[in-house]
Amino acid sequence: MSAPLLRGIIPPLVTPFRDDGALDLGAFEANIDAYAGAGFSGVLVLGSNGEAVSLEEPEKLSLVRAARRHDGTLIVGTGLATTAGTVLLTSKVADLGADAALVLTPHYYRSQMGLEALRRHYETVADASPIPVLLYSMPAVTGIAVGPDLIAALADHPGIRGLKDSSGDLGGMGRLLEAAGGRLEVACGSAPVLYPALCLGASGGVLAVAGCAPEATTALHAAWERGDHAAARRLQRLLTPLADAVTRRHGVPGLKAAVEAAGYHGGSVRAPLLPAPRSVHDEVAGLVEALRQELAAA
Amino acid sequence: MSAPLLRGIIPPLVTPFRDDGALDLGAFEANIDAYAGAGFSGVLVLGSNGEAVSLEEPEKLSLVRAARRHDGTLIVGTGLATTAGTVLLTSKVADLGADAALVLTPHYYRSQMGLEALRRHYETVADASPIPVLLYSMPAVTGIAVGPDLIAALADHPGIRGLKDSSGDLGGMGRLLEAAGGRLEVACGSAPVLYPALCLGASGGVLAVAGCAPEATTALHAAWERGDHAAARRLQRLLTPLADAVTRRHGVPGLKAAVEAAGYHGGSVRAPLLPAPRSVHDEVAGLVEALRQELAAA
Amino acid sequence: MSAPLLRGIIPPLVTPFRDDGALDLGAFEANIDAYAGAGFSGVLVLGSNGEAVSLEEPEKLSLVRAARRHDGTLIVGTGLATTAGTVLLTSKVADLGADAALVLTPHYYRSQMGLEALRRHYETVADASPIPVLLYSMPAVTGIAVGPDLIAALADHPGIRGLKDSSGDLGGMGRLLEAAGGRLEVACGSAPVLYPALCLGASGGVLAVAGCAPEATTALHAAWERGDHAAARRLQRLLTPLADAVTRRHGVPGLKAAVEAAGYHGGSVRAPLLPAPRSVHDEVAGLVEALRQELAAA
Amino acid sequence: MSAPLLRGIIPPLVTPFRDDGALDLGAFEANIDAYAGAGFSGVLVLGSNGEAVSLEEPEKLSLVRAARRHDGTLIVGTGLATTAGTVLLTSKVADLGADAALVLTPHYYRSQMGLEALRRHYETVADASPIPVLLYSMPAVTGIAVGPDLIAALADHPGIRGLKDSSGDLGGMGRLLEAAGGRLEVACGSAPVLYPALCLGASGGVLAVAGCAPEATTALHAAWERGDHAAARRLQRLLTPLADAVTRRHGVPGLKAAVEAAGYHGGSVRAPLLPAPRSVHDEVAGLVEALRQELAAA
Repeated sequence: MSAPLLRGIIPPLVTPFRDDGALDLGAFEANIDAYAGAGFSGVLVLGSNGEAVSLEEPEKLSLVRAARRHDGTLIVGTGLATTAGTVLLTSKVADLGADAALVLTPHYYRSQMGLEALRRHYETVADASPIPVLLYSMPAVTGIAVGPDLIAALADHPGIRGLKDSSGDLGGMGRLLEAAGGRLEVACGSAPVLYPALCLGASGGVLAVAGCAPEATTALHAAWERGDHAAARRLQRLLTPLADAVTRRHGVPGLKAAVEAAGYHGGSVRAPLLPAPRSVHDEVAGLVEALRQELAAA
Repeated sequence: MSAPLLRGIIPPLVTPFRDDGALDLGAFEANIDAYAGAGFSGVLVLGSNGEAVSLEEPEKLSLVRAARRHDGTLIVGTGLATTAGTVLLTSKVADLGADAALVLTPHYYRSQMGLEALRRHYETVADASPIPVLLYSMPAVTGIAVGPDLIAALADHPGIRGLKDSSGDLGGMGRLLEAAGGRLEVACGSAPVLYPALCLGASGGVLAVAGCAPEATTALHAAWERGDHAAARRLQRLLTPLADAVTRRHGVPGLKAAVEAAGYHGGSVRAPLLPAPRSVHDEVAGLVEALRQELAAA
Repeated sequence: MSAPLLRGIIPPLVTPFRDDGALDLGAFEANIDAYAGAGFSGVLVLGSNGEAVSLEEPEKLSLVRAARRHDGTLIVGTGLATTAGTVLLTSKVADLGADAALVLTPHYYRSQMGLEALRRHYETVADASPIPVLLYSMPAVTGIAVGPDLIAALADHPGIRGLKDSSGDLGGMGRLLEAAGGRLEVACGSAPVLYPALCLGASGGVLAVAGCAPEATTALHAAWERGDHAAARRLQRLLTPLADAVTRRHGVPGLKAAVEAAGYHGGSVRAPLLPAPRSVHDEVAGLVEALRQELAAA
Repeated sequence: MSAPLLRGIIPPLVTPFRDDGALDLGAFEANIDAYAGAGFSGVLVLGSNGEAVSLEEPEKLSLVRAARRHDGTLIVGTGLATTAGTVLLTSKVADLGADAALVLTPHYYRSQMGLEALRRHYETVADASPIPVLLYSMPAVTGIAVGPDLIAALADHPGIRGLKDSSGDLGGMGRLLEAAGGRLEVACGSAPVLYPALCLGASGGVLAVAGCAPEATTALHAAWERGDHAAARRLQRLLTPLADAVTRRHGVPGLKAAVEAAGYHGGSVRAPLLPAPRSVHDEVAGLVEALRQELAAA
């Protein structure tokens, strides 16, 4: 296998908007610079938490261009509703320096997305892609969980290199790891199970909460790497409440509020998402601060 | 209330593609012409069954332009992931002669799509729209069922005129009709419950199966209108197996195969959808033919 | 087919308990007597709304004995976790004068309850039963929806006479009716869809709300029978809010409160059910009274 | 805290039946004796995998009496549909020497089983019980996942000592562990996540697969206890396919076939469960043998 793409901690970057909805590229760049010493092994641009579905293509490309200032792995979300559209966008972001493309399972016609349809989609994208392709399984959004049969069918494709599994289902992740048989990297996309996922064999974590808690997530990963399970378990315990707040409970608006509370640029959201109300800002700021104090006390 | 938009039977038109994936506008126009005597009260363009998510904007606009040759109500699906995008597309199709915009609930961030987010989305779209807006509830695709609270909040908006309910849940439709209190038209979007939905108060049906069974659907509606419940029930019984095949079981590829079998132009699908295999072509052709014979025998 | 078992309106009788949890057989009998002029075609004892799972066998038998004072059809719920237990209880209630046994799909090991397991269960029960057997599909409780394949497999069994479908899914009910092909009676078990279910071909309704709204339910059925669809639709609209309150929202405690508000005996519930709080008593009393006034005004 | 109840590996014992359905107590006792050297810390009688719902009370009590020959912790499933019934059965099994009662969430009226109903149920049972009470969360059967709010409400009750979590959701288990704050033991009830659950803080495993793979499960636990994570992960990988077969895929019939293949007494099942077909016997025998060879090779 070539150099790993999904090791360590990778934050899906938020996309800051001005209050009028315009893209705030300066704030986006400032975040990347501010994360420079955080110990991230890479960044993900145009993920769900980056509001990719709310961006026009020129905006997407300008974000990828800007993200290339990051000196680790640059992963870009390129999954669109059609296979052809995904191929095209993947090609464009590869030209701009992306290291890998993260491709969400197509899902609009989910009842028709059987093994064969998904297999052909990923093979077509990977055959055409100049950069490695990563599968993305996020059943909470798509209603589709990537299964071991799909992994087995794709693991030997030279252009497919890994999977982000955001299901939170570690039984399922175990089956995917078994099907991958060491041929694919499997990253955990669900922060509340990061530590046990690493134990099970996950290569790293691609986690929204990393953007508002860089120290806690990288410290957890480091503790696990050096075999300090007690520390890793403790950090997991500290991390979960904030992770729940910025994903399950308050979604992207909550994440952006927490990113802001952690000293980075969150910015507005685009409708139909509603901006986080004051109560959510206060709640996530409290969680960010509590986590910081716990880390300092350790 | 102004002239009704959702009375009678309205087929969501399929979008025929050539084998190389190119839009076949001629086939699309030929279908509209061929449906001319079918008794439809309108047509829906850019719906789910029209593979709207697989179309580029110029393709969408050319389809709307072409559909204006239809002399009944022209409804166009304009729901996109963002409120701003939906506003813009709605304005463009209005300029091209659309009579109403059908707006699917935004759903990518479904856990954040509470009452307030949906209310603001629809109000913003309707405030800006030159043409009447119709809500579209399709929980099988979106995971979101429009509820009576949203209907109650929107029913008095002068720009909002109705709802397409594809849930198939008639208890829920009853609650929506009650919340609407006669201020909105409610169309049935699930063919297996068309007849009982009409009994309950639905204004009409927007039904995929209509595209491959115009006579059966319009005959059912006519029977119901003249109070011939026995005939309506019988037609419902005849219609359901084909409706199940072209929606629940085989999706858009199955629908296109059935449209073809019924003598219209189905054409290819765009990936990641797979073309219907031979077995599905045979199955739906058999169902189309069986339905035709039953109608002839009656 | 023999005399119908599931025509008209049949209330699942509540089982009144004293405050100390003891069975109040007198109250149960008084309810049956009070319903005498209501126009019900039968009663159901030991259904879900009768808290059958909270009763010991001697209590069950005493309720059946008492219910025999009703002079219409006496249907008794006899479905237990095992086939053998269901056979035995069915035999005992037959000896006490039950006219038919309503057998809920076994469901504890639901992942193993495929077509074959269910088919054998019902065949074994029906082979052994001295009285006709009725299937009972209630997916909200069991996670199992009886499908057309099971109906097709059982419809010719001489001991199986019908089905109570409480799914509320009229598309599904249409498929069951088609599979039954007139060989089985299909009753609607979901009050919010009673009128459209009758239109579709249901033989009658077995409905919790009938116990607190006898007039509205029997009037709806009568309106439908005489072909007065406008009246039936109007009664459906009036009935649904109360039906929702005593099933979906407040369950058996809410039903018992409403039965009490309607002038019958509700009584206590057995734990782990909690008694309805004052607010629920007030709410359902308001709904019962509102419905009464609407009926009087008509 | 007193001596632990849920440490190590605890198999839920199957209940062998003869071909005519009669309880085979001798086979049950022989199994316990055969497991004597397996390193189990206890046994569970009358669990879901013990077909408790298919047993009469006298049978249940005879099984508990027989299980007392086991010299580790004797846990007995006593959860019934009513609070009163659960109290009574718990008292009877305590008299027969049970060390703890495992109480499944009541679930028949699941829509009414909110926090308050469940809290009162468990408090009433624990107040009356002579032996410690353990909660049992098995959402695949019950539709109810025990949440952190219930755990927080019950953790200080002196009679409540732990929880078996069979959800397989480790994010959820993390939240339960946090809510328990060290006051309750939390056992993993889902074998495919045993190893990561132990990492996260689970006290042990109560696992169907233990009955047909004693060595693999106890070796996994031992590896984890001595900090040999590589061995634990490897054993997890070996264990999952068999665990999936005897729970998710083939249920109790599959488990009994595997118990038989492993050299113990499986016996028949009671209807409506169907006996495992020959193909399932062959499949699980193959998995049992493959696991044995892998262990021997290590």
